[in-house]
Amino acid sequence: MSTLVFGHKNPDTDSVCAAIALADLKKKLGETITPAIQGELTPESKFVLEKFKVAAPAVVTSFAGKDVYLVDHSDLAQSPDDLGEANILGIVDHHKLGDVTTSQPLECWIWPVGCTCTVIKSMYDFNKIEIPKDIAGIMLCAILSDTVIFKSATCTDADKKACEALAKAAGITDTQALGMDMFKVKSAVDGTPVRELVLRDYKDFNMNGKKVGIGQLEVVDLSILDKVKADLEKDIIALKKEGGRHSVFLLLTDIIKEGSEVLIASDDESVIEKAFGATPKNSKVWLDGVMSRKKQVVPNLEKAFA
Amino acid sequence: MSTLVFGHKNPDTDSVCAAIALADLKKKLGETITPAIQGELTPESKFVLEKFKVAAPAVVTSFAGKDVYLVDHSDLAQSPDDLGEANILGIVDHHKLGDVTTSQPLECWIWPVGCTCTVIKSMYDFNKIEIPKDIAGIMLCAILSDTVIFKSATCTDADKKACEALAKAAGITDTQALGMDMFKVKSAVDGTPVRELVLRDYKDFNMNGKKVGIGQLEVVDLSILDKVKADLEKDIIALKKEGGRHSVFLLLTDIIKEGSEVLIASDDESVIEKAFGATPKNSKVWLDGVMSRKKQVVPNLEKAFA
Repeated sequence: MSTLVFGHKNPDTDSVCAAIALADLKKKLGETITPAIQGELTPESKFVLEKFKVAAPAVVTSFAGKDVYLVDHSDLAQSPDDLGEANILGIVDHHKLGDVTTSQPLECWIWPVGCTCTVIKSMYDFNKIEIPKDIAGIMLCAILSDTVIFKSATCTDADKKACEALAKAAGITDTQALGMDMFKVKSAVDGTPVRELVLRDYKDFNMNGKKVGIGQLEVVDLSILDKVKADLEKDIIALKKEGGRHSVFLLLTDIIKEGSEVLIASDDESVIEKAFGATPKNSKVWLDGVMSRKKQVVPNLEKAFA
Repeated sequence: MSTLVFGHKNPDTDSVCAAIALADLKKKLGETITPAIQGELTPESKFVLEKFKVAAPAVVTSFAGKDVYLVDHSDLAQSPDDLGEANILGIVDHHKLGDVTTSQPLECWIWPVGCTCTVIKSMYDFNKIEIPKDIAGIMLCAILSDTVIFKSATCTDADKKACEALAKAAGITDTQALGMDMFKVKSAVDGTPVRELVLRDYKDFNMNGKKVGIGQLEVVDLSILDKVKADLEKDIIALKKEGGRHSVFLLLTDIIKEGSEVLIASDDESVIEKAFGATPKNSKVWLDGVMSRKKQVVPNLEKAFA
């Protein structure tokens, strides 16, 4: 039976590409393993896989009885609902340590870097296995995406070094241009249903017993979102109600201005003030310099909820 | 402020030596870091540190406000009581993934091998840093201890390979003899208070909401324990009551016969039958071939409690 490797719900480019890369590496180490995704590809991920002619993983949502590796998450809220019936062989991630537990010893490579694919690059090196050209290309894109072309507070020297080596392996000479092409695809919102935009890069967290959803849209210019903003505000209120959530926050991140406008739907907006020292107006607030959900938003909110 | 690195409560040789080794490695990588232990050294650990002339870490039990690395555990029940007020920078371990969580990204090296020191050996190699002779010696002993000189079901090829390299680095030619010397020290019980024997290698687990303690004494011949067995049986009943535990199990492991007699103090002895298919008599049962708490006892008990 094939082992499955997959990233979090609402897969982003790192979750998709890390699953594909880890499957490639583990296959070369002798395991029978297939990458999977927990939901449909985003336009950005589609662009990346098409650019490097890599097949999209199948969407799988039930993992009971399977051997699995998790990539890019260790939070139950982002895992399949039946993860408890799966056998977790390992986790490769770059986030805080979540609430996934196991009853058997496992293999974890979790590093405080900008992207899971940076960790997997080191795993290839550690095992002295060469990264194929196409896999190097998608891993490079995942790092550019997660680090917002090296601008995010999460970006480390290890990410930059990995990108340099991956660009060489993939035959890419202008990394910056590749990144901007990708973010232009990511910025396009025309014709996309509003719920799809909210969920495009969305994660639920358990914060001190409260269910808190945090979505993020990264664009090359916030004005792109002007015509859909009112609908986004309405939709996060709906999403909050549907899931019995305490809050839903949607970060509209301007990757050029380097900051985020947060749209707020919450039972208690004061958590935002507690977390960031900024006062929301009309359930919105601009956070200058805040680009990383993982490093700048989640830890501050967790403290505010504690 | 110095970062602290420490293993689990009731430190065994791996918890002590892994903390010392990780501190050495991280120091060489530029961190200010000191090893610590959560409790007194066992006779085995004392023997090992004295043999290789390595200083014993200080006993530290409060870590609030400190930056810390955990080694050899990721279970809150085995962590300091104020771990929630510490900042966890990383975990190096070889057990199941426990219930420790963080709100910041961290560095985890957790591998399904026989000993934390085997993982740390790979971390030295990954960072291309040479292991000092004395540190290599104590790491070798930790692996010999945790794998019961390669006899345990937890022992992997990686452990054996690490020992080969570490023995060379430490100038040890007869690894087997070193292991037996260590286990002879470990087997000595004369003059040791009975509670100290019960707690010598003891861990509490949360199994489906029940507090379950599992201790282990490894000896070169079970007859060594004949004169203290009645006292051990009485003491685990007392220990069970004191801590509001559902069960305390004490494994008396014969490393030559390769099996364990389990002494049982439990609200429901049938969990043993469920877990191992063997029926206790007079609150005792012999489990042939069972030597590893981690790989053979904990997973089966967790299933029985589920």
